[in-house]
Amino acid sequence: MRSSKQQDRLVFVPLGGSGEIGMNLNLYGFGPEGREQWIIVDLGVSFGDLTTPGVEVIMPDPQFIAERAKDLLGIILTHAHEDHMGALAAFWPDLRAPVYATPFTMYLVRDRLSEAGLLDEVELHEVPLGGHISLGPFEMDMVTLTHSIPEPNALLIRTPAGLILHTGDWKIDPDPLIGQATDSKTLMAAGDEGILAMVCDSTNVFTEGEAGSESGVRDELIKLVGEQKGRVAVAAFASNVARLQTAVEAAEHNDRTVCLVGRSMHRMMGAARHVGLFTNAKPFIDEEEAAALPKNEVLYLCTGSQGEPRAALSRIASGSHRFVKLGNGDSVLFSSRVIPGNEKSIFALQNALASAGVNVIGEKERHIHVSGHPCRDELRQMYAWARPKIAIPVHGERRHLIEHAKLAQELQVPHGFAPRNGDMIMLSEAGAELVDEVPAGRIYRDGSVLTPADSGALRERKKMAFGGVISLALAVDGAGRIHSGPEANLFGMAEPKEGFEKTIDALCDAAQKAVENLPKRSRGDEIATENAVRQAVRRLAPRIWGKRPHVDVIVLPL
Amino acid sequence: MRSSKQQDRLVFVPLGGSGEIGMNLNLYGFGPEGREQWIIVDLGVSFGDLTTPGVEVIMPDPQFIAERAKDLLGIILTHAHEDHMGALAAFWPDLRAPVYATPFTMYLVRDRLSEAGLLDEVELHEVPLGGHISLGPFEMDMVTLTHSIPEPNALLIRTPAGLILHTGDWKIDPDPLIGQATDSKTLMAAGDEGILAMVCDSTNVFTEGEAGSESGVRDELIKLVGEQKGRVAVAAFASNVARLQTAVEAAEHNDRTVCLVGRSMHRMMGAARHVGLFTNAKPFIDEEEAAALPKNEVLYLCTGSQGEPRAALSRIASGSHRFVKLGNGDSVLFSSRVIPGNEKSIFALQNALASAGVNVIGEKERHIHVSGHPCRDELRQMYAWARPKIAIPVHGERRHLIEHAKLAQELQVPHGFAPRNGDMIMLSEAGAELVDEVPAGRIYRDGSVLTPADSGALRERKKMAFGGVISLALAVDGAGRIHSGPEANLFGMAEPKEGFEKTIDALCDAAQKAVENLPKRSRGDEIATENAVRQAVRRLAPRIWGKRPHVDVIVLPL
Repeated sequence: MRSSKQQDRLVFVPLGGSGEIGMNLNLYGFGPEGREQWIIVDLGVSFGDLTTPGVEVIMPDPQFIAERAKDLLGIILTHAHEDHMGALAAFWPDLRAPVYATPFTMYLVRDRLSEAGLLDEVELHEVPLGGHISLGPFEMDMVTLTHSIPEPNALLIRTPAGLILHTGDWKIDPDPLIGQATDSKTLMAAGDEGILAMVCDSTNVFTEGEAGSESGVRDELIKLVGEQKGRVAVAAFASNVARLQTAVEAAEHNDRTVCLVGRSMHRMMGAARHVGLFTNAKPFIDEEEAAALPKNEVLYLCTGSQGEPRAALSRIASGSHRFVKLGNGDSVLFSSRVIPGNEKSIFALQNALASAGVNVIGEKERHIHVSGHPCRDELRQMYAWARPKIAIPVHGERRHLIEHAKLAQELQVPHGFAPRNGDMIMLSEAGAELVDEVPAGRIYRDGSVLTPADSGALRERKKMAFGGVISLALAVDGAGRIHSGPEANLFGMAEPKEGFEKTIDALCDAAQKAVENLPKRSRGDEIATENAVRQAVRRLAPRIWGKRPHVDVIVLPL
Repeated sequence: MRSSKQQDRLVFVPLGGSGEIGMNLNLYGFGPEGREQWIIVDLGVSFGDLTTPGVEVIMPDPQFIAERAKDLLGIILTHAHEDHMGALAAFWPDLRAPVYATPFTMYLVRDRLSEAGLLDEVELHEVPLGGHISLGPFEMDMVTLTHSIPEPNALLIRTPAGLILHTGDWKIDPDPLIGQATDSKTLMAAGDEGILAMVCDSTNVFTEGEAGSESGVRDELIKLVGEQKGRVAVAAFASNVARLQTAVEAAEHNDRTVCLVGRSMHRMMGAARHVGLFTNAKPFIDEEEAAALPKNEVLYLCTGSQGEPRAALSRIASGSHRFVKLGNGDSVLFSSRVIPGNEKSIFALQNALASAGVNVIGEKERHIHVSGHPCRDELRQMYAWARPKIAIPVHGERRHLIEHAKLAQELQVPHGFAPRNGDMIMLSEAGAELVDEVPAGRIYRDGSVLTPADSGALRERKKMAFGGVISLALAVDGAGRIHSGPEANLFGMAEPKEGFEKTIDALCDAAQKAVENLPKRSRGDEIATENAVRQAVRRLAPRIWGKRPHVDVIVLPL
């Protein structure tokens, strides 16, 4: 649009969460093209795995919105899961906008900001459940849904261009154990009013039926704990507060006392108590007290369900936990899903437990886990309530978003758009239109350094993980005469049949010959010498090892 | 036993396959203690994954039996899967025993030995289905079972100490499409005769019911292919010859011509035709011909169901396959299981296909895969046929073997023993007794080098994958004076806020100071200088990057 008097427009831009699992970051903009006012909905992280060695946390690149920070009106967090709020502390200094969340979420936000030394700087607005947020052209209402954590909120976003329903994470649990059931009245009323677009969770779009109620897990867990005669440990995500509630009920019902194991269990329990949960629960005991109880009177609630090596459960399995010991006749109940990519470490953990005589029971054997995200029947129900004109699937891999868009089409939603991160989508009565593509990369927390995912450091490390390293050094004078070296070190290289010593000799010989054979004009030239040595060694290595190591050469000038 | 006249005894020793998936290697020995005669049953490999970067193939360490090669009577291969025969060529030179297998397996054995240049050296005995093998004290009969490859055999091993049933891999498929149904008569007759011990597949011991018949997959695949209007690609393991047969029938039933894509498809089809399979199938076409056919007249049968980057399907998904192109309206049917550890690469492949508009359908959506291994009802049936006195679960992770031993106990098997690799188990009417633990490690094929798994090369590479590398070099004279350097290179390290240049300067400064601060007696000492530099850099690096890189130091003496 290049008219002299520009029209206001409403745009949606996912910077994270569209096309991958985790690290949700959504922008809504309203105003004339290029001069929009913005809000951020959620600011999450994802976690590294075996495909990203040395990278523990992955974040969406906020560059696009950071450059527009002066037009950023606020940051709204739908709920307290890491993939929706974990990047707030890291990026807030570049954004400097007020933060809005309901009490449970805000408790954990404060915790994080405090750790980062930012608590005094950030303007925090605690919004009650069902509360209202007013930011420039955006009039927003929090709508209570059900999920696996307290206070999951959808956001109804009223703009002059129309009404958006941003679902956040949800399922439909008629009996959620914690919190209220889904506020379907408000959703239906919004549907009656007319929803322009629904931006919606796609996690379980490939699963028919419903995710299932937490109360079903409670019934089964009560029964299963009752069957155990030894110690029982329930492994769950600390952030799945609904499950913690379920486990506590299963303990109490079977006259077992709860003992929390793992730092994040204590942290999450603090937040839960802050909003009035667990206040009627019997007192928990600490690990030392629990060790003194008869085996059938304790229930450990543990972190480490994914086989994380430093988490409580791995230490228990290896026998290195100071107070918590499990052995013959004891049981570990994995009340959690297997996150793709973690299979190997989970199986290793379960094998270690089984080797120690521990009964290992998972969600495959017994109904002790339900997902917190909507399956197809729940999606159908949500579309029936909301009746949007445009369906925008988010929160899923590419395949999920495409399937979700297909489902919406089947449900007679007139328009659909499966976005990619960075797509700027204009929303109007005419439908969803891709109007721009903005930068939307990933940021790695690599050790303590924040670095763009495409900076190359991880790629270099993967190269070494595959091929190892040969380092060579030699000291050369201006005439190209070698005064010392070449010497070579190997790291991460298998020992060839000839042995390391002969192999290193062969590499150094090749390096020396390469220097001696340099053309006259290049002799004594550091860079030419380095290149010649590198090339010679690179040529030889595959013949010795059948692979290509990284070859590092330092030529010291004399 | 230390009597002057030693008794003969029967021992079973798994060197691979007990406590992990894949790389089966089983030994049976008979004779006086320490002077047994041996047979090997199966000699397989396992494949590396993200937990073993740079290692493609993992093999059991045959050291124990290689040291007893003169008492090794023969190598019997139950079937042609890689985890049962893949290590034959690598280890045969250390074993030099005759090899026994049925025709289909032998065809592929010849192929492999020929590749390795060993075909003329190895004494090969092709055994007919149901055939007999006589080796010293071991009188053996092949018993036809059903699995996912032609000619899966159990082995009935008669010894003076009793009869063993070694099941190999199996399921009970009443309608297996290829080969005969399970030879239950022979199994029952052996049970009547009295089986001392059954050494049995544990893969699916956690799954209730039955694995399901291949004919069910055929019916569904015929239907599913019939629903497709565009090109269809079926992704399957080439070694799942039953599935190849199913896919060919699905193609013919829907008037589509089959095109094989991927080298191992052609190889496996060659073996199958050799034993008379696919001889009635309509001729296949090559990739170039297939590209010229109308979309609804072709069915590609592809390798790469696990997202292997160099396999056919990944190249098709990335659009880089020369002849096979898939796009809008085409379909890929994943008729295979997800091998744990491969989730991420499979999802990446499926997302790439979905992005290109291809319909992706897997075993979760439709019944297009069944396992080749027995579930609990099938195990119950096998125990009812065999009625062994001793149950020895193999072919599974630790957890599987323990669960399988429990199941056998429930089924009233008097004795059970869940072995670990290297356990030497004496089998007698009195039960199973652990009499020794022998070396049983793993060998990695690391590039082209065979190396013990615990040699450290992989551990070093993983350290670098996590932390990166800092290489430093300096030239020092005998008095400890630095004449050149220190110079430093970084590889796999993220760029700190200060930038690379300043960071490298800081590292070199620290190195230089460390040299200057050496005590007098250490000046000019290469090793002391190296250690001092390494320590200084190791101390500084975590403050810059929050992690510990590998620090490589070369001190060049002048």
